[in-house]
Amino acid sequence: MNLALLFDDDFVSPDRVILRGRRLSHLQSVIKVAEGDAIPVGRVNGDMGSGEVLRLTDTEAELLIRLDQAPPAPLALTLILAMPRPKMFRRILQTCATLGVKDIWLINSYKVEKSFWQTPWLSDEHLRENLTLGLEQAMDTRMPRVQVRKLFKPFVEDELPALLAGKQALVAHPGTSTPCPVHLNRPAALCIGPEGGFTPYEVDKLEEAGCLGVHLGPRILRMETAVPVLVSRLFDACL
Amino acid sequence: MNLALLFDDDFVSPDRVILRGRRLSHLQSVIKVAEGDAIPVGRVNGDMGSGEVLRLTDTEAELLIRLDQAPPAPLALTLILAMPRPKMFRRILQTCATLGVKDIWLINSYKVEKSFWQTPWLSDEHLRENLTLGLEQAMDTRMPRVQVRKLFKPFVEDELPALLAGKQALVAHPGTSTPCPVHLNRPAALCIGPEGGFTPYEVDKLEEAGCLGVHLGPRILRMETAVPVLVSRLFDACL
Repeated sequence: MNLALLFDDDFVSPDRVILRGRRLSHLQSVIKVAEGDAIPVGRVNGDMGSGEVLRLTDTEAELLIRLDQAPPAPLALTLILAMPRPKMFRRILQTCATLGVKDIWLINSYKVEKSFWQTPWLSDEHLRENLTLGLEQAMDTRMPRVQVRKLFKPFVEDELPALLAGKQALVAHPGTSTPCPVHLNRPAALCIGPEGGFTPYEVDKLEEAGCLGVHLGPRILRMETAVPVLVSRLFDACL
Repeated sequence: MNLALLFDDDFVSPDRVILRGRRLSHLQSVIKVAEGDAIPVGRVNGDMGSGEVLRLTDTEAELLIRLDQAPPAPLALTLILAMPRPKMFRRILQTCATLGVKDIWLINSYKVEKSFWQTPWLSDEHLRENLTLGLEQAMDTRMPRVQVRKLFKPFVEDELPALLAGKQALVAHPGTSTPCPVHLNRPAALCIGPEGGFTPYEVDKLEEAGCLGVHLGPRILRMETAVPVLVSRLFDACL
């Protein structure tokens, strides 16, 4: 937690917040703050600044906050991910949030096991929790939006073309002959398949919708590695 | 396991291997091979190719192998990491191996907790196991070398200058004013600090040894995210 992200519920007046639970524990046991110390804070979808610890007890910390700094620029990226295996999902969400991805779509694919969609990590509460952890790591405040589409074909045929308008659209597809572009630095949409990849039918459908199939070289990367590698490659001027 | 990595012990004749344990389980329960099927294989530090399943029992698989393909090119990168927290360490090792990093140094730093060095994951056996998982993911055979230096000052003063000779040497240091170069694509050495970063003294010592302090923008990345972001940024032509 390099920054404590503040939500509306935390505010007791326009410039005071009370922190409890995870953020309080972190202040106490990791940062080891004392009354009078200031810590970095940011208001969700708002500005960042510092919070002075006015009062610290076992159950709450009251902070006087001053927000005067804009959060880092968001990435101009729509990231479309085949729903990952639950044990990787939280980490991928956190990584996306840390990297500045703001528009995340979770879609189905032949190799996405049905059970992946049953994970409790897809609840609104858990999504927000993991995205918050990623933002707090990065020192950012803009909450990403996550959308879930459990049917591949209607998504790709009915929604994707409009979503790709005005963007360079790519699908990461090991084995294709076109290398992924570097330093694109303009609005992009990027589809990343499941373990084992999108099927040829799925790649065809994504290409029909306007995506260019690109590869990242001979190495097969896990999704959690592919996301930072691709983001860094496309947006070198923005990180 | 996109490729089964073969070790000397697996060979029963120049072109036959017997697999047991983890690799056998994977063949049976994930890939679901049958006799006659061929799977991608590679010999550690040697060529890659395919292995035809000659015989499959509950306890072993015998493969007829043919190796006729060079592994992907290694990255010309010396990666110097402050020893990570044990729960992140395995994943970072696997990621390094997957990305093609072959020269990894684990060093001490003020913010590396002493307990991190006690992790069983530092044993030769566990290092090899996790690096193998990373190579098998990537479809690579060249085993990275991991070196451990538990004293910061002697390493930086006595060993580092020679290690950096002929390389562009960088230390990732949030807060410095020089952005990390892009598409370097030549031999490099990269130091990445612990959670909380190297101390100013440590950055000074690394700079004295020849490292240039560079930042990755306003976001603070976890080491597991910083490694792929930096590798992708420096070696876009090599991935």
